Amino acid sequence: MRIALDAMGGDHAPKAICDGIRSAAQEWRDDEFVLIGPEEVLRPLFADGFPSNVRILHTAEWIGPDEEPVKAVRRKKGSSLVVGCQQVKEGEVDAFISAGNTGALMAAGLLYTGRIQGIDRPALAPMFPSVSGRGTLVLDVGANPDAKAHHLAQYALMGSIYSEKVLGFENPRVGLLNIGTEEGKGTELIKEAYRLIQELPIHFVGNVESRDILHGVCDVLVCDGFSGNILLKTSEGVAKAIMDRLKQEFTRTWWNKLAAAVLKPGLKRFAREINYKEHGGAPLLGLSGPIIKAHGSSDAKAVFHAVRQARLFVERGVIPRITEDLHRIERG
Amino acid sequence: MRIALDAMGGDHAPKAICDGIRSAAQEWRDDEFVLIGPEEVLRPLFADGFPSNVRILHTAEWIGPDEEPVKAVRRKKGSSLVVGCQQVKEGEVDAFISAGNTGALMAAGLLYTGRIQGIDRPALAPMFPSVSGRGTLVLDVGANPDAKAHHLAQYALMGSIYSEKVLGFENPRVGLLNIGTEEGKGTELIKEAYRLIQELPIHFVGNVESRDILHGVCDVLVCDGFSGNILLKTSEGVAKAIMDRLKQEFTRTWWNKLAAAVLKPGLKRFAREINYKEHGGAPLLGLSGPIIKAHGSSDAKAVFHAVRQARLFVERGVIPRITEDLHRIERG
Repeated sequence: MRIALDAMGGDHAPKAICDGIRSAAQEWRDDEFVLIGPEEVLRPLFADGFPSNVRILHTAEWIGPDEEPVKAVRRKKGSSLVVGCQQVKEGEVDAFISAGNTGALMAAGLLYTGRIQGIDRPALAPMFPSVSGRGTLVLDVGANPDAKAHHLAQYALMGSIYSEKVLGFENPRVGLLNIGTEEGKGTELIKEAYRLIQELPIHFVGNVESRDILHGVCDVLVCDGFSGNILLKTSEGVAKAIMDRLKQEFTRTWWNKLAAAVLKPGLKRFAREINYKEHGGAPLLGLSGPIIKAHGSSDAKAVFHAVRQARLFVERGVIPRITEDLHRIERG
Repeated sequence: MRIALDAMGGDHAPKAICDGIRSAAQEWRDDEFVLIGPEEVLRPLFADGFPSNVRILHTAEWIGPDEEPVKAVRRKKGSSLVVGCQQVKEGEVDAFISAGNTGALMAAGLLYTGRIQGIDRPALAPMFPSVSGRGTLVLDVGANPDAKAHHLAQYALMGSIYSEKVLGFENPRVGLLNIGTEEGKGTELIKEAYRLIQELPIHFVGNVESRDILHGVCDVLVCDGFSGNILLKTSEGVAKAIMDRLKQEFTRTWWNKLAAAVLKPGLKRFAREINYKEHGGAPLLGLSGPIIKAHGSSDAKAVFHAVRQARLFVERGVIPRITEDLHRIERG
């Protein structure tokens, strides 16, 4: 298998990417890893020896995290992020991972890799933590804010397949994000999506409320990109505000500091559990090739895990299976 | 002033409502309070003397928290909740407060009290806590899931007036819930709403992301009922999951219990701060009379605060001011 990585994307690039690829190259010796970025920057990061199954694909430019996605992708055709997507399209590599600009990755994926036939809009599908520990795959969280009902149905199908094949959930429970659990609740969009999803050959558990997701009421959560983004960012904001406030409380007095020291190991474990950044990268489901968005803050370990995820994505044939299921549904 | 309360709505009704009204009657001796519910149930709750400025308006039936709103309102025309809305319509009372079924209160408000002329859809507008302590008025959180752009513009106007008059925020900062802060982000609905809100004579601060709301980036947050509901329930769910998990951690070992005891007062204070239930009731903005939804879990203190809120709602002339502004805008 051949996996490409954007050496220049992410807060800790290129070092974290190079360190991650080094571990991956050691773990999967029969695979080949293509590191995309400026040779003169990357080569020195392997001072203690270049792994034999890593290859640098030289590119001179890259896209920054704050660049306007569509413009950046159009202007910087030679950037590491765009070249990665082209490599997937041309079959030069089996999968591509980037921790860079999310919008640009989606735009480049659409423009240079293309969609699976029958999928109208790809979705960004990160893992959402749950207190039970299994987590929930949420799609879409912002790739397509103005979703139509049939887009949501396509998300349901793709999410179910990905969850089973890559995350190992047997017969995954697929829920629809809504403002009440009863059938007939919500907007016209959601009601129509409910009807379409019901017809699919998946394990649909109906409407799900956002307050229950952390308790693991479903394995896959389907939502339009706008609501999904609100869900994700609200969780992030609330968790961060609470954690910040706890830290304040824990250092307010000398006694508090002492007490906090006792509780620290347990709290650290918990903070890790609810940090969705620990839960792997987000696939761009619906593109014709396996492309994974790793978190912007990815360290070497996160990069290594993203490689593991990309390998399963390819190995388990997620995209052929989506294509096949779409054909079967179309034929009735 | 004359204020009516639904004696039979809420988890702690009728006792909490009666206790709350007793304090309110003492605080505002020149006002008259109308307690709506079954005389035989309510009278005994005032065993130690009935306040001279409280009057019972007898009704034999009431609407339960789990009843289907529209059906219940149509069938139970003599219920405390419906009678309260009629009393406002007929000018028998100046305001009405209920801690009962939210959907039923909105339905009865629409059916029996009616809308302000020029407002298409009323909004439910609770306070959302912020770590800075001021809080944010959020509207709508579910009264109208399928909002149109001009509904959102009406929310912006009403929210700004209410925030200034009742909450005392000078020149309140009005934000639009979106998935990015740049202009041009989001769905077609939100983009169109942005254009309309920009034209209003209010202090519009543009798009706001959900993760920043807890940090008090705006005083009024405008959103469609679907997204607002997701925002509210996600916050509730995440905060509860974290607090539950902390409690677990705090009792896991004997040492942890001891350490937790030291931290307890500070944590309790914090839990109260972020509990939006402490932040007053939610007005149903857009109805032609002041109607306030108190929290289902309201205790006597919360009922007392809802009365204070209702008094300001009336005294500061929120509804006349909304009507006036709407006319002025219409005339250009």
